[in-house]
Amino acid sequence: MNIIYPIVLSGGGGTRLWPKSRPDRPKPFQNLIGEQTFFQSTLARLDEAGFASPRVVSGEAHTGLISQQSNHGQLAELIVEPAAKNTAPAIALAAARLDPDAVMLVCPSDHHISDEPAFRNAVQAAARLAEAGWLVTLGIDPTGPETGFGYIERGDDLGSGGFKVRRFVEKPDEKTAGSFVKRGTFSWNSGIFIFTAGQFLRELERHRPEMAQSIRESVAGGQTEGGKFHPASVPFEAIKGESIDYAVMENAEKVAVIPVSMGWSDIGNWQALRDAQTKDNDGNAALGRAELVDCKDVFVMSDGARVSVVGLEDVIIVVDGGEVLVIAAKDAQKVGQLKGAKDL
Amino acid sequence: MNIIYPIVLSGGGGTRLWPKSRPDRPKPFQNLIGEQTFFQSTLARLDEAGFASPRVVSGEAHTGLISQQSNHGQLAELIVEPAAKNTAPAIALAAARLDPDAVMLVCPSDHHISDEPAFRNAVQAAARLAEAGWLVTLGIDPTGPETGFGYIERGDDLGSGGFKVRRFVEKPDEKTAGSFVKRGTFSWNSGIFIFTAGQFLRELERHRPEMAQSIRESVAGGQTEGGKFHPASVPFEAIKGESIDYAVMENAEKVAVIPVSMGWSDIGNWQALRDAQTKDNDGNAALGRAELVDCKDVFVMSDGARVSVVGLEDVIIVVDGGEVLVIAAKDAQKVGQLKGAKDL
Repeated sequence: MNIIYPIVLSGGGGTRLWPKSRPDRPKPFQNLIGEQTFFQSTLARLDEAGFASPRVVSGEAHTGLISQQSNHGQLAELIVEPAAKNTAPAIALAAARLDPDAVMLVCPSDHHISDEPAFRNAVQAAARLAEAGWLVTLGIDPTGPETGFGYIERGDDLGSGGFKVRRFVEKPDEKTAGSFVKRGTFSWNSGIFIFTAGQFLRELERHRPEMAQSIRESVAGGQTEGGKFHPASVPFEAIKGESIDYAVMENAEKVAVIPVSMGWSDIGNWQALRDAQTKDNDGNAALGRAELVDCKDVFVMSDGARVSVVGLEDVIIVVDGGEVLVIAAKDAQKVGQLKGAKDL
Repeated sequence: MNIIYPIVLSGGGGTRLWPKSRPDRPKPFQNLIGEQTFFQSTLARLDEAGFASPRVVSGEAHTGLISQQSNHGQLAELIVEPAAKNTAPAIALAAARLDPDAVMLVCPSDHHISDEPAFRNAVQAAARLAEAGWLVTLGIDPTGPETGFGYIERGDDLGSGGFKVRRFVEKPDEKTAGSFVKRGTFSWNSGIFIFTAGQFLRELERHRPEMAQSIRESVAGGQTEGGKFHPASVPFEAIKGESIDYAVMENAEKVAVIPVSMGWSDIGNWQALRDAQTKDNDGNAALGRAELVDCKDVFVMSDGARVSVVGLEDVIIVVDGGEVLVIAAKDAQKVGQLKGAKDL
């Protein structure tokens, strides 16, 4: 088995975890579950035999946080994007810096995975398919009819736990999602990809030749300085931003999915974060000073003030940086619409 | 009609409005409804033709707040209790400083009364009975089977809106309270009293001769200084503290009640305070920076932090002095049991 080259994407932020997540301290760099930040947990998950030192792709704004939250020499390289152009160009930059035969593992830096052995087993299975020329995505066994994720339908069994992808389905409505879960042949799209650098770049060349050309120019004109690689900004900024799903995965021929159950969550909102906490017998969890009386399924997170709660159920309370958020857990999706979140 | 001498009792505090009410800034001196504090509203309510300048009875700890919250010369006298001995001794001090024929109106300083003309009409009716030798209490028409108040049963009709008191009943259980409300002959005990100074002191002498003697000594040995009267502390501190209800009202013969509906609340907990606010069409009210989305009957009070609330019903949120309280309105009675409240 060849070594696997992890590529950690540290972009993204979002307002659904406001007021905790803010532009100057986005979600990947916060410790919302346990001691480590999501970024640190992602690095720790990859700190195992069989993995090369990780490469990180990030915007200039987060390079300071990345240095603070990684050990000296822990990263093989930090690729600094001259502009935010979504995932396809970010991954292509990393691919262009690797040997064409290198197996890449692309992972977001703000997901939670509680079953790490299951994760690594799935990655190993995916790597075998990648070496045979497949573009592989990890598909999450759905635990309910979620409408916030894309779905992947399985086709032919490729052996070793992998399946040819029959089709990608964008975020469905609840009824459609329910039918997918029932049929048992669908996975959630996790945003975790495994392929060789060469195969990815060949498919990019085929389906997005202009982007592939700009990436080549950006890398050729780039400069390395103290562990950081700065691609040339002029060709990179000219790229039309696009996700890897749209630009490559949905167009390529040899695309596979490895279904896996690994305690995965993208922690996309406060309800998901609440669900990922360790809870007491009443389903309550508190980070920071809190007293909960006659409560059930209540989650409190406070950066200082004591929070005293009486008689509530299924409520999430966040005190952070002079903001107090109190929501019914079921309404977690609405947080991004609040004035505080929109004013960011 | 003779002039009425208001006596404002500014003792009390309690923990049921924690974290807003604290020992160093008790409830009477806070503006929890509108611009004025409860103490200021109490003075304003008495600033009418027919009333003398008010006397205030208070502990030493609150004399600074009283000076800040009253205009120069607005008070006839501030009587400073050497120790907290409940209401009977406090009222007796004030009575002993007045002419025996003077009609006293004794009022707490932390109640809310929305219908002030109804209040003044009831006081005038009570004053007529007081001049005929009755000890009169204002009885509140009950709006529900509250278990947090004492109840007063009406006996013979005395004319001018007054009734002889048949009996005082201590805080009943809910079933008993419900039967009282149903019968229509019961009022809540408001803690507002009207009598002549002489009649009160005669009844005190009859039922609590030791207390009456100590009060005489405290007043005889007291000193006046800059608008304040300091009773002698040695005899006063020897008094066994007791409420006016226990010491006098429940023992005296000529005790009357004037039933009145005047938008009264003792604002005994956060639910009562919520109910006394001006609300929007969804029953929500907010004091301080707040955004409420999809909420109903939610009350927010914040001393600084913005409070953003989504999808809650019948919840009260208080942010004050580094404490955050979030409670189901129905559980407002439990606030005094929280660690934060008990640590005071």
